[in-house]
Amino acid sequence: MTMEFATPYRSRSHLPPEPGRPYFVEKGMGDRAHLFGDLITIYAGGEQTEGTFNFFTCEGAKGDTIPAHSHAETYEVFYVTAGAVRLFVEDTAGEQYEKLLGAGDFGFVPKNCPHAYRIERHHSQIVGVAAGPGGTFERFFENLGVPTEELGLPRTPAVPEPGKFATVPREYDVRFLPEHRWRTPSFRAQDQR
Amino acid sequence: MTMEFATPYRSRSHLPPEPGRPYFVEKGMGDRAHLFGDLITIYAGGEQTEGTFNFFTCEGAKGDTIPAHSHAETYEVFYVTAGAVRLFVEDTAGEQYEKLLGAGDFGFVPKNCPHAYRIERHHSQIVGVAAGPGGTFERFFENLGVPTEELGLPRTPAVPEPGKFATVPREYDVRFLPEHRWRTPSFRAQDQR
Repeated sequence: MTMEFATPYRSRSHLPPEPGRPYFVEKGMGDRAHLFGDLITIYAGGEQTEGTFNFFTCEGAKGDTIPAHSHAETYEVFYVTAGAVRLFVEDTAGEQYEKLLGAGDFGFVPKNCPHAYRIERHHSQIVGVAAGPGGTFERFFENLGVPTEELGLPRTPAVPEPGKFATVPREYDVRFLPEHRWRTPSFRAQDQR
Repeated sequence: MTMEFATPYRSRSHLPPEPGRPYFVEKGMGDRAHLFGDLITIYAGGEQTEGTFNFFTCEGAKGDTIPAHSHAETYEVFYVTAGAVRLFVEDTAGEQYEKLLGAGDFGFVPKNCPHAYRIERHHSQIVGVAAGPGGTFERFFENLGVPTEELGLPRTPAVPEPGKFATVPREYDVRFLPEHRWRTPSFRAQDQR
């Protein structure tokens, strides 16, 4: 059973629009979006879990460190299933940490902790869960970036129009921190997006 | 940074006992438990997410179908990262479905839907998230089974004492359904545990 549904987000989706329904999604066939150089694929979100949690993957090419940001009410999991991803995170006391995560390694970012990552191998994949008591934020990616039917990485980076940065992040509990500086050993300022 | 903590569950754990702290867990080094033939490894739970969600892996050998069960308040993700796992699930109208999930495939089981799975390849791994509005249930495995410091599958099955079935499942929103029968094509009654 792999069914298709019309939902508020897609005319054809493998995620059912109403809660309470079991479903299966084959690899890569979740709701997809491009944001900068990355492909985000949603397999479950707030509609399916009564707003409790979501489940998505993020794939990207080896590249730069994404912009530092934090979430006021959202906890976030970074579980790497392929490749290598360096996670940067700062705790609420200002202490900074970094760790290179390979396949099977796990990183946890609590709410209000600035964080960023840098994909360090081509064909890396991160499994993400991002949710908190206030809900889930999985539609951030396609609202800041663009929904896509493609299965691969964007051929040219999906760079948001500047105006979107004023509204979309706030709606999805994302706060970009343009003044933030990483002081950990592997951070390279020239790599920051 | 890979630190160790004393927690209510382990004298040495890579999961911090208090919320709000970023942390990393290397592959396999979460809080581990054996239950029947499986190894469950917890990477995050209710303490870290304000009771919103958890994140764990389940590894097992090729074997039998686990007992059918359901959760009154818990939604559950089955995301296969290695091997092959057949997921059986029944919706609340009584319709039954099954699907063989390989690496990268996803299955979603809503609350109140009877479900079971059968690992169909050795060295399979499932990533699980199991949570709902009422909380998370990740300590079910070590309370019905046994906590372990080992990194591999149990050498002999960790079969719970019968008395535990009367109390532990109820505490963790698990309801076993001994009368349940799967009618889908690949179910083999002789394989049911």
